[in-house]
Amino acid sequence: MVGGGGEVRFVGEVESAGETSTILIYPEFCPGLLGVGGFSHLFVLYWMHMRDDEGHRRTLQVTPPRHEGAPLTGVFACRSPSRPNPIGLTVVELMGVDGCSLRVRGLDALEGSPIVDLKPYSPRGDSIPDARSPEWSEHGPPT
Amino acid sequence: MVGGGGEVRFVGEVESAGETSTILIYPEFCPGLLGVGGFSHLFVLYWMHMRDDEGHRRTLQVTPPRHEGAPLTGVFACRSPSRPNPIGLTVVELMGVDGCSLRVRGLDALEGSPIVDLKPYSPRGDSIPDARSPEWSEHGPPT
Repeated sequence: MVGGGGEVRFVGEVESAGETSTILIYPEFCPGLLGVGGFSHLFVLYWMHMRDDEGHRRTLQVTPPRHEGAPLTGVFACRSPSRPNPIGLTVVELMGVDGCSLRVRGLDALEGSPIVDLKPYSPRGDSIPDARSPEWSEHGPPT
Repeated sequence: MVGGGGEVRFVGEVESAGETSTILIYPEFCPGLLGVGGFSHLFVLYWMHMRDDEGHRRTLQVTPPRHEGAPLTGVFACRSPSRPNPIGLTVVELMGVDGCSLRVRGLDALEGSPIVDLKPYSPRGDSIPDARSPEWSEHGPPT
């Protein structure tokens, strides 16, 4: 492997998954949530643990299956869960905070997925309404 | 440590940093770039290697230094580079692709920062112009 790597520490997990999901942050990391309720949206970085194997991590090109008409595409040009690092990224709406537990809407992680990080969504820097994307990506699921 | 962890593989590095930055993807991962030029914006996930030590990784609350009036804030409620996992996330504008090299605008990584992942920015799912954020976060840098 070129270039080395790093160690990710899981800070929580997806306790239940659905239209609304519950994220549990482990007690030792819970102080990191101070003030999170001031944001309406968060980035959730999670570990796609079902894809953490050599076969999926060596996948570099896929035909995005849920996007009709999509061509063969590099994993850095789509949101394939098979990729060198099984890190998923979703913008979620924060519905509520109860101690170390967050209720969120829009998370596409599975139940049991480890949480890698939460970052507040800042519309000034993170919202690009006019961003261009290829025609195939405009159908099917948003990510 | 509760909950275990995972192994991140570096797929490239920031070759030069500035108003526009150059990202080099290592040759073995370069096929993952197929089709990336169809997107105007990308998420860059990078490893904040200067913060990859116990002191910074055990930091759970900070007073965001570049945001006047910011209160003590959990690292999951701000974009502090000191956090349990030193993963930075920035939306960049893709200016050009040349082989395994990307020219981007808006990256706040340092020269030499390892690249963890690139994901295409999809305005349908990733742009939330009306997201709410606390007053302190609306001054200073966007992230």
